[in-house]
Amino acid sequence: MSALADYIDASIGRKPLSLLITNCKLLNVFTGEIYTTSIGIYEDRIVLVDNGQNRNRAERVIDAEGMLALPGFIDTHLHVESSMVTPYRFAEAVLPHGTTTAFADPHEIANVLGKEGVRMMINNAKDLPFRLRFFAPTCVPESKAVTAGAEITPADVEDMLGWEGICGLGEVMDFPAVLSASSKMMQILELGRKRNSVIDGHSPLLTGAELNAYITSGAEADHENFTVETALEKMRLGMYVKLRGPYLLDTKKFVSAIDKLPRPWNLIFCTDDVMPDNLVRLGHLDYIVRSFIKAGMDPVEAIRSVTIRPALHMRAYDLGAIAPGKVADLLLVNNLEDFRVKKVIASGQVVAEDGSLTLGLKERKFDQRALNSVKLQSLNLRDMMLDMPVKEGEIVVNAIDFAKYMKAEENNFLDIALTNLNKVKIKVKESQPELNDVALVFVFERHGKGSGRSFGFVRNLIGRGAIASTIAHDAHNLIVVGKERNDMMMAANLVIKSQGGISAVLDRRVLAHIKLPVAGLMSEEPLNEVAKEMMKLRQAFAKMGVLDHPYMPLPCLLTLSVIPHARITDRGLFDVDQQSFVYPFVSRP
Amino acid sequence: MSALADYIDASIGRKPLSLLITNCKLLNVFTGEIYTTSIGIYEDRIVLVDNGQNRNRAERVIDAEGMLALPGFIDTHLHVESSMVTPYRFAEAVLPHGTTTAFADPHEIANVLGKEGVRMMINNAKDLPFRLRFFAPTCVPESKAVTAGAEITPADVEDMLGWEGICGLGEVMDFPAVLSASSKMMQILELGRKRNSVIDGHSPLLTGAELNAYITSGAEADHENFTVETALEKMRLGMYVKLRGPYLLDTKKFVSAIDKLPRPWNLIFCTDDVMPDNLVRLGHLDYIVRSFIKAGMDPVEAIRSVTIRPALHMRAYDLGAIAPGKVADLLLVNNLEDFRVKKVIASGQVVAEDGSLTLGLKERKFDQRALNSVKLQSLNLRDMMLDMPVKEGEIVVNAIDFAKYMKAEENNFLDIALTNLNKVKIKVKESQPELNDVALVFVFERHGKGSGRSFGFVRNLIGRGAIASTIAHDAHNLIVVGKERNDMMMAANLVIKSQGGISAVLDRRVLAHIKLPVAGLMSEEPLNEVAKEMMKLRQAFAKMGVLDHPYMPLPCLLTLSVIPHARITDRGLFDVDQQSFVYPFVSRP
Repeated sequence: MSALADYIDASIGRKPLSLLITNCKLLNVFTGEIYTTSIGIYEDRIVLVDNGQNRNRAERVIDAEGMLALPGFIDTHLHVESSMVTPYRFAEAVLPHGTTTAFADPHEIANVLGKEGVRMMINNAKDLPFRLRFFAPTCVPESKAVTAGAEITPADVEDMLGWEGICGLGEVMDFPAVLSASSKMMQILELGRKRNSVIDGHSPLLTGAELNAYITSGAEADHENFTVETALEKMRLGMYVKLRGPYLLDTKKFVSAIDKLPRPWNLIFCTDDVMPDNLVRLGHLDYIVRSFIKAGMDPVEAIRSVTIRPALHMRAYDLGAIAPGKVADLLLVNNLEDFRVKKVIASGQVVAEDGSLTLGLKERKFDQRALNSVKLQSLNLRDMMLDMPVKEGEIVVNAIDFAKYMKAEENNFLDIALTNLNKVKIKVKESQPELNDVALVFVFERHGKGSGRSFGFVRNLIGRGAIASTIAHDAHNLIVVGKERNDMMMAANLVIKSQGGISAVLDRRVLAHIKLPVAGLMSEEPLNEVAKEMMKLRQAFAKMGVLDHPYMPLPCLLTLSVIPHARITDRGLFDVDQQSFVYPFVSRP
Repeated sequence: MSALADYIDASIGRKPLSLLITNCKLLNVFTGEIYTTSIGIYEDRIVLVDNGQNRNRAERVIDAEGMLALPGFIDTHLHVESSMVTPYRFAEAVLPHGTTTAFADPHEIANVLGKEGVRMMINNAKDLPFRLRFFAPTCVPESKAVTAGAEITPADVEDMLGWEGICGLGEVMDFPAVLSASSKMMQILELGRKRNSVIDGHSPLLTGAELNAYITSGAEADHENFTVETALEKMRLGMYVKLRGPYLLDTKKFVSAIDKLPRPWNLIFCTDDVMPDNLVRLGHLDYIVRSFIKAGMDPVEAIRSVTIRPALHMRAYDLGAIAPGKVADLLLVNNLEDFRVKKVIASGQVVAEDGSLTLGLKERKFDQRALNSVKLQSLNLRDMMLDMPVKEGEIVVNAIDFAKYMKAEENNFLDIALTNLNKVKIKVKESQPELNDVALVFVFERHGKGSGRSFGFVRNLIGRGAIASTIAHDAHNLIVVGKERNDMMMAANLVIKSQGGISAVLDRRVLAHIKLPVAGLMSEEPLNEVAKEMMKLRQAFAKMGVLDHPYMPLPCLLTLSVIPHARITDRGLFDVDQQSFVYPFVSRP
């Protein structure tokens, strides 16, 4: 007898159900109704949804006591690496929040370990009661201005699209390459189009003909929504608009704009990057949903934005709804207004209750080959010194300036992350710059490619001490920023020794040190442990006067050569607008 | 340069557009808005939708003069054969009505010619500016009670699913086999499920656990919606409910029920079977849409039911919307209330205006091997005679009775098509039955399988004369019904001579003769010509007192062994409820 026959037998009553949930209020994502039902499950599938009259025999019965039943939440755009734990630990952490499926873009690890890193992520996520699928990264490295650990070629993409566990083309970040119809980018996009694959987009602030051209390429969704206007334009042009919630946008403003549309459909919520402390403190997709409901969104539409619509977008026809034949991923919650996930059922198993995992997941070690990715020797004080053009006196330098932060609109992350290149006069003493107005920044190439070190100056980012990090988007080289050379050396050596992580040092005292030995990006510890370290880091930031943002520590973005206007990569100070390197010294005074 | 690059170039303005439509009001299927735009097309794709400010150069400009722009209509459940013309002629006929894509189930021809017939349909539909894709038929023959021309095995289905032009598993009509989890049916369904294929359903009147079990099998849509209650139940259980419109249901009743749902999504319109005369007189999907709008449905929801939702259901991500990257299938219509399709653009070409085709389609002959499918010699009067058990006197027979028709609710086709098996006393004279109260019916197996002829009696279907038809669902043997043996012989010989068709003969005069030489089901003539013959047939029916229904002539359904309660196949009189054959003679009096 085939497996399908078993499900049908259980549905019709020839075989007992594995689990019957009685007395729950179903939020029906198809009709928008809420009504009392019972839900019958056989093994991993829902096989019966009815008013309780056809009560089949069941091996286990759960009385939901009138709780609301929602489909398990689906996240269609996120980076597991941003939560600083391995896929297996990530599953443990998000299941209690009701996220039962995630489609992740592993481009962080791909920048370190290439497509083999992607395969390691897939393997680490296998056979969990949590569906974790991965996009094939399309833009590694993010530009020609960086040295990454690997490059993803069109041939790699073709290869990956044939792997089990790959769900489509990852966010097409290199929108200038799309708009200029670059041949490599066209090759990659055609690969996805030929297979009718999902193609995830990334087109911040594009509008008009440029946005039209970008969408024409096949990119069908975008999470980079900073303004209501561009989000609406994307919805009108047929993209699934993925909103990331209150870290990055004014939910009330967005809800009020969307409410003005007569019958909006193509709206989705996603998390993108969730720092471990935020995941513990606030939640995962449940936090985003709660925020939008609080901001006035119709709860049915909010739930649809994390269930049926993500499923349709991802061609995952057996997910996203409580209906016969669908995978038995569902949540019982107390109410819709201020909902708390009381019980999580994934693949037909009760996996979490009241915010805690109740089903132990079989432990999975990450591929050991990912554990030695920081290919740097211990550094010394000389490595923190510059070869200044003058021995004593004053000099004008080009400094990356975060001054815009100060007048940034609340919740406008793009404004916050934007930098300018400003000329700053600094003093030189004993051949070294005085670090009063500016901080020093170094990027050490850490992939063993022999690119060495670059240096630069940065303003309005750090007050005292030093920070080092191997999370430095997207190439994830080692960035060290600081006001004091000894602190910088110490901070750098801490993360080199732990084969990755983020450290904060003040007055030669270690204030925080998150150890991330997996590709220099992730820990194998439980997420709760990493979150504690992350909270320490936030405290250190406060003490040291480091610009912080709940969404992501800003030093980790100082290297991202595709965000305007000035960045620093392992190859040097980079003018993003001009797409060229700039020498940090302007002139002798 | 790749093709994709050309589209991007045209979108961004580096290349002229092929066609620019200015000054149209776009119905946006994503947001529900209606607003003025211009639409830029390059070759077969839409590449630009904007407010007209980015007006790129264009080879041709059409001023829409404020007309409404809608995506081309998509029909996801229909049988081309029911319109009695070949796919190529069908395309000619429906394009002017705005149907630009159809997903057809070719199970009529498959019953005659097997999977080779399906291939012939695909080939005949190739390279048209009309997208015609075919489902792999799953239930051929429809039951074990008939002799069809071919059988479709699981291996055939597997083969077909690999063909270009095949879009999924066709309507799973044999719901008893699904509910009993029959091994052949499970094999076929697993083939579709493994490929994530669309699986079209057919579950008239199923409810509760049976409906749950049917949907659990993977069937994701159903067009068999006779009552509001079962339609709502299917929507709640996640099926796409496909409504066929006013031939078969009370549109007002359905609209009012659907309006009560808070936010219904999974609603689609389809045509299923459209007789050629109806297509000419009333229209195609446009008629269905108009009817639902007239019945009070929100026009945006009505348009979504034939555009974006069918596209999502069919995994046809580049159809169903006017947006960059989508196939350039769109309609200009005068208004939404009583809309008329003024202009049809398919694959970027203007193909029809004001109801007429303006672009001549390249003529396509149907595969010649389909032209000799009626494997019967000319019949004589003896073939219309019975071997009665008495020579003179009276006898009681089991007659198929359409009496229920008389009290059928309006627009309830199932009631109309339902038959009962009733006992009727008839006179016998010179060894033959007197045809006063009953008509004679013969089914001649016409596929060369040597099954011969069956006979039976039928009441309340025909008053005078005779009808013969090689459209006799689903096995499409030759059915002859009549009150006069000479008329019956003549009618039968007409369709044998024309290698298929329907004929009506009264008092040895031919009142109508639709010639359908392609598989005995279709004509290669233009649809208008066939429609004229169909109108003659309707007039003949009126004259002869034949029960008629606008949806389909009822004699063509007398053979369908899956519709309750009594039918006749080439093998004999069939009790559908008992699933057994019944001898027509009850007893001597």
